[in-house]
Parts: sequence; C-alpha cells; structure tokens
Amino acid sequence: MKTKVICPGSFDPVTLGHVDIITRASKMFDSVVVGVLNNPAKNPSFTTEERIELLKKATAGLENVEIVAFDGLLADYTRERGITAIVKGLRAVSDFEYEFQQALFNKKLNPDLETLFLTSNSDYMYLSSSGVKQIASLGGDISSFVPECVHDEILKRLK
Amino acid sequence: MKTKVICPGSFDPVTLGHVDIITRASKMFDSVVVGVLNNPAKNPSFTTEERIELLKKATAGLENVEIVAFDGLLADYTRERGITAIVKGLRAVSDFEYEFQQALFNKKLNPDLETLFLTSNSDYMYLSSSGVKQIASLGGDISSFVPECVHDEILKRLK
Amino acid sequence: MKTKVICPGSFDPVTLGHVDIITRASKMFDSVVVGVLNNPAKNPSFTTEERIELLKKATAGLENVEIVAFDGLLADYTRERGITAIVKGLRAVSDFEYEFQQALFNKKLNPDLETLFLTSNSDYMYLSSSGVKQIASLGGDISSFVPECVHDEILKRLK
Amino acid sequence: MKTKVICPGSFDPVTLGHVDIITRASKMFDSVVVGVLNNPAKNPSFTTEERIELLKKATAGLENVEIVAFDGLLADYTRERGITAIVKGLRAVSDFEYEFQQALFNKKLNPDLETLFLTSNSDYMYLSSSGVKQIASLGGDISSFVPECVHDEILKRLK
Amino acid sequence: MKTKVICPGSFDPVTLGHVDIITRASKMFDSVVVGVLNNPAKNPSFTTEERIELLKKATAGLENVEIVAFDGLLADYTRERGITAIVKGLRAVSDFEYEFQQALFNKKLNPDLETLFLTSNSDYMYLSSSGVKQIASLGGDISSFVPECVHDEILKRLK
Amino acid sequence: MKTKVICPGSFDPVTLGHVDIITRASKMFDSVVVGVLNNPAKNPSFTTEERIELLKKATAGLENVEIVAFDGLLADYTRERGITAIVKGLRAVSDFEYEFQQALFNKKLNPDLETLFLTSNSDYMYLSSSGVKQIASLGGDISSFVPECVHDEILKRLK
Repeated sequence: MKTKVICPGSFDPVTLGHVDIITRASKMFDSVVVGVLNNPAKNPSFTTEERIELLKKATAGLENVEIVAFDGLLADYTRERGITAIVKGLRAVSDFEYEFQQALFNKKLNPDLETLFLTSNSDYMYLSSSGVKQIASLGGDISSFVPECVHDEILKRLK
Repeated sequence: MKTKVICPGSFDPVTLGHVDIITRASKMFDSVVVGVLNNPAKNPSFTTEERIELLKKATAGLENVEIVAFDGLLADYTRERGITAIVKGLRAVSDFEYEFQQALFNKKLNPDLETLFLTSNSDYMYLSSSGVKQIASLGGDISSFVPECVHDEILKRLK
Repeated sequence: MKTKVICPGSFDPVTLGHVDIITRASKMFDSVVVGVLNNPAKNPSFTTEERIELLKKATAGLENVEIVAFDGLLADYTRERGITAIVKGLRAVSDFEYEFQQALFNKKLNPDLETLFLTSNSDYMYLSSSGVKQIASLGGDISSFVPECVHDEILKRLK
Repeated sequence: MKTKVICPGSFDPVTLGHVDIITRASKMFDSVVVGVLNNPAKNPSFTTEERIELLKKATAGLENVEIVAFDGLLADYTRERGITAIVKGLRAVSDFEYEFQQALFNKKLNPDLETLFLTSNSDYMYLSSSGVKQIASLGGDISSFVPECVHDEILKRLK
Repeated sequence: MKTKVICPGSFDPVTLGHVDIITRASKMFDSVVVGVLNNPAKNPSFTTEERIELLKKATAGLENVEIVAFDGLLADYTRERGITAIVKGLRAVSDFEYEFQQALFNKKLNPDLETLFLTSNSDYMYLSSSGVKQIASLGGDISSFVPECVHDEILKRLK
Repeated sequence: MKTKVICPGSFDPVTLGHVDIITRASKMFDSVVVGVLNNPAKNPSFTTEERIELLKKATAGLENVEIVAFDGLLADYTRERGITAIVKGLRAVSDFEYEFQQALFNKKLNPDLETLFLTSNSDYMYLSSSGVKQIASLGGDISSFVPECVHDEILKRLK
C-alpha cells in the first residue's frame, strides 16, 4: 500500500511546529505533500514563492516530502493528486473544534478523503505563525520558534 | 514503507463506531492491529474472548486487520510489535482532551510512537459501548448501533 | 398548540438551580413534567419518594408542573406521555458535551423528541446536588443552595 | 399559553442547517419569527431583502413562521414584539461558549427573555453560511448544503 | 517579599469586570500595574490617554494601583519593571485557551514571568468592552456594565 | 502585605507537576501551605502521613513552604488559617471547567477567598498522580514523572 498525504496550510512563515508535523508524517507515510495555500487576497506577509522556498530549506533532509502551491478546493485537489488523507497538527481544543468541522466538511465533499490529526509536540503548543510575526515586529527573539536555517531570512523580511 | 498501526480499546461490546474507525484505518495503513484491552479488574460485560470473537465477525471482510488481546503498557506493546502509531476516533471535545493527554504520555514513554486521530463519522458521534449497554438494559432497540452480524449475540448477552 | 416538556434528573436533592430551570420552563410551555429518575442501583442519598416530596414542596406555586417518578428509556417514556421536548439546564462546557451526545442519542431513538437547553442563571453555575451534599457533610452552610422551604428537611437527612 | 419565539441570524445565505432549526422550532412553538439581521456595515453577500426572499421560499410550507428584517438590540425588539425566547442551533462547543455569553447578556438586558438551544442535526454540524460561500467561490458543489428551491438563485449570486 | 503584578489589556473602555479583577489583585499583591496597550493601529474607540483617564477614575480608591501606557513585548516590559506575574481574569473556556497559549509563549520569552488567572465574578462572565460598545451603539442601557463614575463620559463618547 | 496561599490536593503521590506549581507559588507569595486532603474514604494508595512525608522531601529546599494535613471545608480552613488564595495548576480545558466551578463555589462560601490558576509547565501537561500509578502498576518507568529524591520510595510502594 502506497499512501500519499497532504499537510495543507498558509505557512506564513514556516515554524518549528510545522516542521515537527511534516517530519513525523514523513516517517509514517510513503509520500507527504506540503500544500502551501495560494491566498493573495489575505495579504500574507510572505509571497507564495517565498513560503515555498522557506519550506524547501526547512525540510531539505526529508526525501519523501514535496512542497507545492495549491489553490481551489482541498477536496478536489486531493482527488486529482491521489491523496488519501489530510494530516494536521492540533495544539488545543479551539484548533480541534475548527478542524473537526473542516474534516466533516471535506468528507462530505469527498467521501474518500480522511483527515488525520497529530498532537503538537508539547514544546510547540503555543506556537503559531502569527505569534512569530507579532514577536518579531516587537523586536523579540524568534530563534526558538523557527528553523535555524531560515531564521535570518524570516527575520529580515519581518522587520 | 510498511506501516502497522493499532486501534486499542475495550470494545465492550464492539459498536458501528468502532467498525467505522477500523475500516477507515485499514484503507490507509498496511496492517491494523485491533488491541482488546484485557482488563478483568474492570468487570467488563463481555469476557476478553467474547469481545475478540465479536470483533472478528464484525471485521471479517478486512484482510489486513488482526484482532489481539493486549495488556500491560501500550507504549511497550507497540515497541515489541513494531507498531508505528495508535489510531483513535474522536467524537467530541471531551474525548479530545483525554486522548490528547494520553498521546503526550505515550510519546514520553515511547518517543517513536505516534497517535493519530480520526473524526468519528457524524452518524456515530453520540455512540459508545456504555450507551449501547444502557439502552439494551432498558429494553431499547440497539440495531442502529451495533454490526448486524453480531446484533443478536450482543443482545442476548446484555439482557 | 399545547406543548408538554420534561425536565428529567436525579434531583438528589433538589437545588435552587433545578427550581430556576423548572420555573422558567413553566413560563414557556403549557405543561412541565419533572421526571425523577428511579435509580435505586445508584444508591441515591434520598429515596425516590423523598425526592418527589421535596420537589413538590419546592415547586408548590407552579400550577402547570407535575412531579413524577420515571424509569426505563426516556425516549420511550416521552412517547407514551405525549412529551415533545426534554428541557435541560447547562452550566458549563462539560455539561454541554455530555448533554449534546445524549440529545443526539435520544433523537436517534425517538426522532420526534427534541432537547432544549437553557443556560443556568449565573448565580447557580457552580451548583450541583453532589456539591450540596459534600458541603453539608463537611458541616458547611447550604442555605444559599437549596429552596428555603425544604432546607431543614434536606439538612437533617444529610447529616 | 401562546408562545412566540425568534430565530435571529444573518442567514447570508440560508442553509439546510437553518431550515432544520426553524422547522423544529415551528413544531414546538405557536409562532416563530425568523429575524434577519439588517447589517449593511458588515458587507453581507446578499442584501437584507434577498436574504428575506430566500428564507420565505425555503420555509414556504411552515404556516406559523414569519420572516422579518430586524436591527437594534435583540433584547428590545423581543420586548416590543411579545417574544418569549430566542431559539438557536448549537453545532459545537465554540458555538456554545459564544451563545452562552450572549444569552447571559440578553437576560441582563431583558430579564424576561429566555434563550433556548437546540442541537444541530448531526448532518449539519459542519455547516455554516460562510462555508457554503467559500465552497461556491472555489467552484464546489453546494447542493447538499442549501435548500433545493433556492439553490440556483444562491449559486448564481455567489459566482 | 514585595510582589508586583501587571493587569494588561486594551480597556477600550474599562468595564466593571476589569475593575473587579484589578481590585481583587490589589488585595493580594503589593503593587498592581494596569498596563494599557498602546495600539493605535487597531483603531481603538478611545485614545490611550482617554483609556488611562477612565481607569484612573475607576480605580481612584486603590492606593497600590498604578495606570500606565505600555507597548512592545510584554515579556520585555515586565522584566524592565521588575514585575513577577501577569494577572488575567478568565470568563470562559475560549478565554482560557487563548490565555493559556499566551502564558506559555510569555514563559518561553521570559522564563521568570508567571501568569496568574482569576475567575471572573459570575455577574461579569458575559461582559466585554466590545459588548458594551455594541449595546451603546444600539441605544441600550450600559449602566450595569461600566463604573458609575465614568458612565456618562463613556456613553457620550460612544454615541 | 504578607500573603499566604494554599495548594490543596490529594498528592497521591506527589509528581513533578505538583513540585513545579508549589515552587512557582513559593516565589510569588510570602507563605505557601500545601494542604494534603485527608480522605481515607477514597482509599488513597498512600496514607496521609506518607503523602506528607513525600511532599516534605520533595520540597525540602523551599523555606516558605509548609506541608499540612487538611480536612473539612476548604472555605472554612482558609478562613481559620488566614489564607488569602487557593493556588492551582491547570493542565487542560477539563481541569479548567471543574476548577472554575470549585472556585465559584468557594467564593460563595467564603467571599474573601480567591482562587489563582497557574498554567502547568508544558512538560507536565499530561501528568497526573493516577497516570503515574497506572504506569508503575504496568511495570513502566516513572523516573521522568516523580521527584528523584522520592522515586524509589514511591516505586516500592506502588509495586
């Protein structure tokens, strides 16, 4: 059985929490697609291309991981790509509620599509891209929150 | 990559909610171990042997599913058996809280062990073995809650 | 339209929180049945008869309220009695989760049966029969928690 | 006893989840007012008039249901109209938290006003107007989410 | 031991819920700093100066309370000022989730900084600055929600 | 201002999570009473005396911490001892719900008594005395969960 899964998200920018989930998924599934949501209307801090570039560097050692831009309906995209399941990290109950509704929605739109949840590593339970951006904008140190290999790049962009 | 997962539980008795999770896991992973907790101290309504027998019948069509009795520490058992992940269904926030703590606990005891959560099918969100037993004991109809092939067997035992 | 509803519970013993919900239901519905769960197996602190007696006194002024003992499946009992809806007070999220599952369960067993939730009065959000019993057993003052007209009776019994 | 209730909301646009709650309320109460929030400042996708028109079609068979535009304070409007209770559907814990606070707020502003919660049908637990709009905007099929009689009208408007 | 704590917030405008938390903190700690977030980018309804002025009036009787404007990273500000702990009121589970993540974040940024939570008084569990503003804008009575000594000032500004 | 607080609990047995909360409280308050609930009816695994002994060893370095046995109503005990606040660690939403109700209950019984919540250290979010006992009973390693200085004593007792 060859199982392909997707880790969808904005990744604006990638954090150590994202890298943790992607790495753990890559150990359980044959192929992991990291789907970067192409959402210019939401005014992301990093362009889709920049976010893909950062993710590529941050996951450089993982051979079965592929980074792609993605738009449209996730339920359709997964069908086209032969993806069996969405993999998401959960940090807290509020994450769970939202993701739970999304999972039921996606199952209605594509009954073959599963959603699998992983619990966040307890070190990253408080971590979000928006938190990282807020701290950087206030001059705080973000080195415990983002991958070392892209730290300078992220910091330069956020200042 | 060959991935083996475990669906642990009491299954006292098996419900359609359990069968749904086991079936969906069997489509994503090479091998699914259904681990029936051997817990005589908790006075289960069905013996471990009976619970295994009911599960075998209820999952008869699934070739990559194996039913086993299991006791001791799940984190140890999975290591011995080469199991990569625990797969659990989540019905509600209260499930999530408890399972979240268990998942962090298990990760501490066995850092290689993942826990993957699936959302329950919305038809089974209210369903639990104890609910089934309560309804049967009050003379209610349990045919929408348990697999048809073991319905009579379960009902006879619960009366 | 004549609407009859039920407020089910153990009422072991009745608290001011219960009286608040029953009173509010009696203003919205033509007829309110207070269903006292006859559950000798659970070793209640008050007998079914005592609990009914206390409730009768505590709701003496409400003309469209009837106190009854009740056992068996709520979904069946409501059908027999022509009851349209269960009315429950919610104090907190954990109440909500449990009651939500019960409501879905009851709707499956009796598709015509609704469950309506009222939010507890903020003065009674922390209040439960078991809390009252615990406080009384430790010699605390329960006069803010139970109806005045049955306070002495309850206190005598709990000592 | 004649009880009049209100189902308030944006209904931007009406979904099958809304119709389910309105229909169930119409079976329990003598008169159901569906109050469409007149909120031009929030840039709704449909005008107040359009939302009323869609609701009228979607509830055409329900004789004791009236659709009205509504602005100002709900606690005042209900007083003027002789409305006893607000009826809301709850889909999840996060709904519950918000609605719980609103209910306490409304009770403070109008002590005679009750809020009654119904659990969403499990088929509609994931359903929201904004979800429907998002799916339509991405070219997805919304026919399982909105009433058939207004499906084309909604779809045309959202494209 | 001299313990200095901070009650941070927008206070846009101060409510009776805020005053309750500040007053209770002032009874437990030697010195309470009320930190008004200077956030012009968020278009607050009251300027930072106005919010400070309202808070000064509302806490006039509390000798160990100081009102200050504050921007930048809370974890840095507390270090500079010798503040041991953040004190926050919790109204509901959704508050808790958010505050919990903030507390873990702040502890990461400043390991010596604690966050202490107080439960809101049950009379103020539904109360928020945005709720007060919404009610005032709809012509409702806000006298139960804001301190009497600043009621007129707040009302004039919100109309 | 001299502030005395209490950390109440069963401590059956003490875990690193307990020690973390006690230590942090001892840095913020002049005096910390650790109140061991004397609850023989609940069949604790360790006697009250044993639990006190373990806590004394585990908090040996903290000068302003006192370990006491305690029974009766917490609201009364705190009044007698001049205690201003209860300090509790919160691990999860379900903790929060329960503790929130207890806090409101205690405030009703003793209006001067505050309850302060600290978030658990993220390393101990999954940790409970019952979890430790379960793992020890199944032969697992508990050395990451209990203070080193009492590890052998606890293990010997639990086997």
